[in-house]
Amino acid sequence: MKLLEDKILNEGIVLGQDILKVDGFINHQIDVSFMEELGKDMAEYFQGQGITKVFTIESSGIAPAVFTAKYLNVPMVILKKQASKNLKTQVWQTEVVSYTKDLSYELTLAKEYISDTDHILIVDDFLANGEAATGAVRLIRKAHATIAGVGVLIEKSFQPGREKLESQGISVYAQAQIRDFENGKVRF
Amino acid sequence: MKLLEDKILNEGIVLGQDILKVDGFINHQIDVSFMEELGKDMAEYFQGQGITKVFTIESSGIAPAVFTAKYLNVPMVILKKQASKNLKTQVWQTEVVSYTKDLSYELTLAKEYISDTDHILIVDDFLANGEAATGAVRLIRKAHATIAGVGVLIEKSFQPGREKLESQGISVYAQAQIRDFENGKVRF
Repeated sequence: MKLLEDKILNEGIVLGQDILKVDGFINHQIDVSFMEELGKDMAEYFQGQGITKVFTIESSGIAPAVFTAKYLNVPMVILKKQASKNLKTQVWQTEVVSYTKDLSYELTLAKEYISDTDHILIVDDFLANGEAATGAVRLIRKAHATIAGVGVLIEKSFQPGREKLESQGISVYAQAQIRDFENGKVRF
Repeated sequence: MKLLEDKILNEGIVLGQDILKVDGFINHQIDVSFMEELGKDMAEYFQGQGITKVFTIESSGIAPAVFTAKYLNVPMVILKKQASKNLKTQVWQTEVVSYTKDLSYELTLAKEYISDTDHILIVDDFLANGEAATGAVRLIRKAHATIAGVGVLIEKSFQPGREKLESQGISVYAQAQIRDFENGKVRF
């Protein structure tokens, strides 16, 4: 998607070999009209598939997921990151270990916001190792709902996230696919 | 705001003496077109005041803040909750102690997303004891920016949040003001 690629080239900052900082328009400060365009494009890509809900993982996926859900005209659900296992039976949980951030958490969803007739689109800002996205897939499958796909703004194609998802039959749409970083420049 | 009051009466769940659960449309699952109406109303209330940015605190303030910023046509900034003090000089930080949730965190903002010419609207989902909102006020004042006000979806008027803010000269707009809970029913 050219709009996002241009923004990354103009305003993204490459740190070291594999970090792209997009804090100025996606993660920390948000360019709202730009984000709405991304959400609209995401919804157009997945439209007509009978999606009933958009799920995201708190917190940097919330803004793109809100606009995707708006244009698909469905509710949006925020999967929560909880520090410890919740022993209540009213929640679905699965442990996510993030090697990138060196932490783990229980991805948590109240059972009342999912049913076995739901067909769910997962939206997040980044796809790299796929830890959060595969966690969301496990959670949705625990509830016997189905998955329309995973939509992300930015994919780091040199990391295994897409492969992990596609090998489970999950379709992936990335609005910008980063092949690598060469001399501090992003290559799509 | 009648739209929000009606939704709270129809879908909110009162737990015990002082907890209102709005997980079905604000905090966990989000009714997106409803949320957009709230953001539009918030923007209309504060329009014409020269607001340059909307700030919120991660993560349940993000959805209302995104739509408020959209209708004010300004960027939105997410203040991050970090577990520990960041020793880098590129961030503003202030400690927030949440008695409600029995935890504390460092509210964190990269210095590049605020300047002394900014006039900022703080948006959050709830105002109760005002811990997060007064933390955001301290952070903004550290950066010598000015504050247009605090806008929240739901205020618990029986808790001291509004008083703490107004006594510092901060104007507060709440779309629904809860006076108390009587026999498990919300009274505005």
